[in-house]
Amino acid sequence: MSNSLSELLQNIKPADAATMSRARERQAQLTKPAGALGDLEEISVRLAGVFGHEQPHPQGVAVIVAAADHGVAQSGVSAFPPEVTPAMVANFLAETPAGPGGAAVNAIARTVGARVYVMDAGVNADLPDHPRLIKAAVRKGTRNLKSEAAMTRGETEALILAGAALARQAIEDGADLLIPGEMGIGNTTPAAAITARMLTLDPAEVTGRGTGVDDERLAHKVAVVRGALARTATTDPLDVLTEFGGYEIAAMLGVMLQAAASGKAIILDGFVEGSAALVGVALAPALRDHLFAAGECAEIGHAAQLAHLELTPMFKLGLRLGEGTGGVLAAPLLLSAAATLREMQTFAEAGVPGA
Amino acid sequence: MSNSLSELLQNIKPADAATMSRARERQAQLTKPAGALGDLEEISVRLAGVFGHEQPHPQGVAVIVAAADHGVAQSGVSAFPPEVTPAMVANFLAETPAGPGGAAVNAIARTVGARVYVMDAGVNADLPDHPRLIKAAVRKGTRNLKSEAAMTRGETEALILAGAALARQAIEDGADLLIPGEMGIGNTTPAAAITARMLTLDPAEVTGRGTGVDDERLAHKVAVVRGALARTATTDPLDVLTEFGGYEIAAMLGVMLQAAASGKAIILDGFVEGSAALVGVALAPALRDHLFAAGECAEIGHAAQLAHLELTPMFKLGLRLGEGTGGVLAAPLLLSAAATLREMQTFAEAGVPGA
Repeated sequence: MSNSLSELLQNIKPADAATMSRARERQAQLTKPAGALGDLEEISVRLAGVFGHEQPHPQGVAVIVAAADHGVAQSGVSAFPPEVTPAMVANFLAETPAGPGGAAVNAIARTVGARVYVMDAGVNADLPDHPRLIKAAVRKGTRNLKSEAAMTRGETEALILAGAALARQAIEDGADLLIPGEMGIGNTTPAAAITARMLTLDPAEVTGRGTGVDDERLAHKVAVVRGALARTATTDPLDVLTEFGGYEIAAMLGVMLQAAASGKAIILDGFVEGSAALVGVALAPALRDHLFAAGECAEIGHAAQLAHLELTPMFKLGLRLGEGTGGVLAAPLLLSAAATLREMQTFAEAGVPGA
Repeated sequence: MSNSLSELLQNIKPADAATMSRARERQAQLTKPAGALGDLEEISVRLAGVFGHEQPHPQGVAVIVAAADHGVAQSGVSAFPPEVTPAMVANFLAETPAGPGGAAVNAIARTVGARVYVMDAGVNADLPDHPRLIKAAVRKGTRNLKSEAAMTRGETEALILAGAALARQAIEDGADLLIPGEMGIGNTTPAAAITARMLTLDPAEVTGRGTGVDDERLAHKVAVVRGALARTATTDPLDVLTEFGGYEIAAMLGVMLQAAASGKAIILDGFVEGSAALVGVALAPALRDHLFAAGECAEIGHAAQLAHLELTPMFKLGLRLGEGTGGVLAAPLLLSAAATLREMQTFAEAGVPGA
């Protein structure tokens, strides 16, 4: 482990319990029936704990989309060909009449005022230079986890640090809520392997249809995950990530670790993001305090991740796109939750009679 | 029924099926796996149908908070005293360091960029004039539905038209998404009576804890609703509303009818709003096409309303505040859904290989 990764881990502090207490007291005095804002109340209290202020004021929202390819995509685990990964990176960067980027994450981010960062974490193509593309690839796609370790430990650490560096950039640009997102044909396969190993679950319980494979290909995908798990018995978090990949999962882990180390909140989108979070909380349990679950995604295995992380999703829209889209959609809910603590009057301030 | 109410009803048109077809085709060609945006896809298609364009562009968001008092509040159906209603109106209008309004709906509306309109629909107090308060009261609170009709038919129609007039104002100000919201101590009681009658359900199935009554008071509240239902057998939608009240429910109905007649979308928040919607779809079935359910609220009976309206809620945060808060929180989801149809590239446009 490099010095800077260990420093990163050491800098991750739990949410501040005293601040959360004060926020909870304030939330109870605001002009509404007790508990009437439902889950938003606990979200606001948790945000107070993360930002160390009983009236937290998160403002900037950043989604960091890390893209990479996967050797296992050659093994028929996805409904889409691997060529989609570089094509989607071009789509994230495309100039369109609506602005930069023609993918779902771009459209949604423009709508809610989030900034989009795009990283080549290991795409299997010669991507042209672009002012909005951060190039951090160390290899053009991982090795095939079916038969060998997808990454080397050095590659894993390099991508974690690259993700952390981009998160620092986003934070310097004003981000308070960071959303790790991903694009990588085949990446629900390593995510399933990581989730199965980290949660000691059977591959069939955590391997889903990804972009939409049929029953036959799903059975094959489960077998591939099962084979990968049989290949290695490691439970060391960074080794698990190294064995199964992928580069964008490592980069998202780096984004999360840096966001937490910098005292920011992280909105957790889908299943692939969740696999990075499982590795993250194994490395630094306090990371959990900084995580907020967006929606429950349609991919099987996501619910098990959220249960382990003790996170309650905010919506259930059946999203299964990735790119951080669910996280961006959830950002206004977090900003609103924080606003209640900051901008609502108390019963006393407003002169409203209580219950 | 006044001429203008019947005109309003006649102007409510169903969503445009041909436009929805084209939107559905476009949604299927956008750069993402089929169905990966989950419920947002159908929401985008429905918005296309409402706005009559396969790339709908809703922009302005307005929440209209109608406040009124209820005679039944004297019968011990609420955890809060009726004095809270005028105090909360003052809170909606208060000058605070964060801007106008110190209630939850103000804080959330500021966060998502929604405009707040406040209407006195029949508050039991002499409210001082205020530049942002629309005065439409015809009486200081309804009569007690326990023993007599809460409103007269003339009052009902007056408040519907007042709500419609304010909706027209909001639309002139730029609103495309209209959110009826309410404040009125005791108003889950008339809402329960309306819901029970319109859906032919037992009061116990639709009478909830509102702002938080205990078991004993809940049993009393159910008995009050049961008594009110026994008092009259009417099933005429406007008579049902007249019998049980209240003024803010009539005003919200007017907001919905005008929004639909003007070809706009309506975000439906909680249980009280839902009772107005039940009356509305009974009067003009095409209103349903304009309704989008925000969240499933914690109040018992809301799920039955949504099932009848065939609406799927977007989130489940356990909100039970009213004020239109859930609707305002859902606005960015609707705006984002529309943005996908408008701003995402198709596979062909982006040069992305398909599945």
